[in-house]
Amino acid sequence: MENFTFYSPTFFVFGKDTELQAGEYIKKFGGSKVLIHYGGNSAKKSGLLDRVEESLKKEGIPYVMLGGVKPNPRSGLVYEGIELCKKEGVDFILAVGGGSTIDSSKAIAAGVVYDGDFWDFYSGKPVEEALPIGTILTIAAAGSEGSPDSVITKEEGMFKRGASGNALRAKFSILNPALTQTLPAYQTACGITDIMAHLYERYLTNSKEVEVTDRLIEALLLTMKHEGPRVIADPNNYDARANIMWAGMVAHNHTCGVGRSQDWNSHNIEHELSALYDCAHGAGLAVTMPAVFKYVMNHDVMRFAKVAVRVWGCQMDFDHPEVTALEGIEAFQNFLKSIGMPKNFEELGAKEEDIPKLVEVLCRGDGRDGTITGFVTLNEEDCTNIYKMMI
Amino acid sequence: MENFTFYSPTFFVFGKDTELQAGEYIKKFGGSKVLIHYGGNSAKKSGLLDRVEESLKKEGIPYVMLGGVKPNPRSGLVYEGIELCKKEGVDFILAVGGGSTIDSSKAIAAGVVYDGDFWDFYSGKPVEEALPIGTILTIAAAGSEGSPDSVITKEEGMFKRGASGNALRAKFSILNPALTQTLPAYQTACGITDIMAHLYERYLTNSKEVEVTDRLIEALLLTMKHEGPRVIADPNNYDARANIMWAGMVAHNHTCGVGRSQDWNSHNIEHELSALYDCAHGAGLAVTMPAVFKYVMNHDVMRFAKVAVRVWGCQMDFDHPEVTALEGIEAFQNFLKSIGMPKNFEELGAKEEDIPKLVEVLCRGDGRDGTITGFVTLNEEDCTNIYKMMI
Repeated sequence: MENFTFYSPTFFVFGKDTELQAGEYIKKFGGSKVLIHYGGNSAKKSGLLDRVEESLKKEGIPYVMLGGVKPNPRSGLVYEGIELCKKEGVDFILAVGGGSTIDSSKAIAAGVVYDGDFWDFYSGKPVEEALPIGTILTIAAAGSEGSPDSVITKEEGMFKRGASGNALRAKFSILNPALTQTLPAYQTACGITDIMAHLYERYLTNSKEVEVTDRLIEALLLTMKHEGPRVIADPNNYDARANIMWAGMVAHNHTCGVGRSQDWNSHNIEHELSALYDCAHGAGLAVTMPAVFKYVMNHDVMRFAKVAVRVWGCQMDFDHPEVTALEGIEAFQNFLKSIGMPKNFEELGAKEEDIPKLVEVLCRGDGRDGTITGFVTLNEEDCTNIYKMMI
Repeated sequence: MENFTFYSPTFFVFGKDTELQAGEYIKKFGGSKVLIHYGGNSAKKSGLLDRVEESLKKEGIPYVMLGGVKPNPRSGLVYEGIELCKKEGVDFILAVGGGSTIDSSKAIAAGVVYDGDFWDFYSGKPVEEALPIGTILTIAAAGSEGSPDSVITKEEGMFKRGASGNALRAKFSILNPALTQTLPAYQTACGITDIMAHLYERYLTNSKEVEVTDRLIEALLLTMKHEGPRVIADPNNYDARANIMWAGMVAHNHTCGVGRSQDWNSHNIEHELSALYDCAHGAGLAVTMPAVFKYVMNHDVMRFAKVAVRVWGCQMDFDHPEVTALEGIEAFQNFLKSIGMPKNFEELGAKEEDIPKLVEVLCRGDGRDGTITGFVTLNEEDCTNIYKMMI
């Protein structure tokens, strides 16, 4: 196991009706003027925004509102949010939504207290200061409610890039699984896929002797395998939603990723798909991961055999571990299909003829040197092959 | 799953040589005059205290020292520490040791800023304020480095009682697995047992639909089952020590205990043993747990069968789940014996004739009403029967 630091200071408030405590927690964490940042109409229509506003009014906390966050959140709205916060003297940002809204809120939070262009943080500059933020989560997926990370798409060039820093961790996160019950099945399944991707990206490691984090990751994958189909079959299953929601947080607050190298190449390869086609991140991952895993499997067959046996219930083929390894990848692929995820470029809305462009942006965009690094370092030829496997 | 809040703001610094950063982290968390609180001679002899003092001197941080913490830490030394801190104007406490030293430090931290008797907190008053503390952990066991809890023994009457509150969570905890390599095998095994007890106490729940926390607990039990024998066989196995150390933290910072009722009757029943005989807490738990589990097994046979199958690798007896349930308890008992833990009163140094006294203090001491509550509510007759099963 490698040396590490771990810090997850977010105060989590989990369960039914917890969104009614938003005002109370903003006060507790020192907010006196709030930006409520949200996405589209669903938070309005469902009455969630009304309940949140009521909670702030009850505590006498003034606020301004900025909606319109889209999936794969854009830099344009971030600039708008930064201006608004500066103009209105906002000192606390409340994100009401999913990962996109939280990530957009984090970008605004970092940008408000920074003299330069906020995009610097998405080009490698660590975030050391930001306005405090709170979140009210409406989809279990990105894990942004407990992570120090944010991903934003720059409209010029459609780069999708990430920023990170402990200052981006939410002061509090309100997780009410009931709020996710109204999600369409497709979005729920995208969330399940994203959570499982966060687990696989950490599982694919070159670090040795990391049993505790291997086991924790497997535990969360097993939970998703069990609860995923239950929630697709019955969207109102509160308990299945609750198990998925906590798994999604633990999967990404880094508890189970410490002390080990990680992959994140599936995320990198997918980011170009959702940037170009504006498809759901989870859907893109469902198509990307099996291709990547099959391509890199021989780098560590026993690791893929281990997850196949421990999570997917495969029988170990002791004479041919590669058979078991592949069986596990296929079991995962079948699982993703069973919850309604796309399985290839066509179902995703991606085009074969775009592959050179995808590879160019992936491997050369934003200062990259022709490779992406992770579990295995992949060059342009590798990435071309992987995209071709998704056709 | 039940509603819950979760808050674990401790900054963890994990790995080789991390104790050299103690001064740096005390500064980061605002300490300007420190009490270094420690146990016996091992921290001195090993040179650990020298290295820690050096680190504080390097940062120009003045300190006073108070050693002498014993296993099952006593109220007498806590009173002494409180006086010393007040006299010296200490504003930060650094615990260098195991759970006993950390718990004693927490008690001092709460007592220094409180006008009344610190024992109030160990009689049910929640801790809302305390001096900040940091820890340098020297044994993986109690989980106190990441928990809001502290257990102290009151010398008058030999009551062993707990206090709790987020104010008792360490600001930072330094975990260097190499520091645990010099521990005698018996103490290492006691630590392993304590960690597994923290997991079982959370596993024994009456809450339904808690798959994610069930799976996380099982993951950590599986880790202990794998790494425990490796570290007993080779005390210098850094990686096995590291896996156990992180498991011990996650087992007790509550990540895997949220949203579910818990047991803690094994701890309650054991506390009277270590209070009366001054035996190691882990050793007491090794004798206590199998007896408690067998006594309460029929309350939820399927739960005991589940841990038997998922952790201990038992084959499920679908016609007679109680057979599998018992097999799992026996597998755990055999595991504890295999790492050198005592299996009965005699090996622990406890006496059959003391049972009435043990039960009296357990069920009637410190204001209790004749029962202890948990997975199953146990009365004096139940507790008598359980102690008798340990003979």
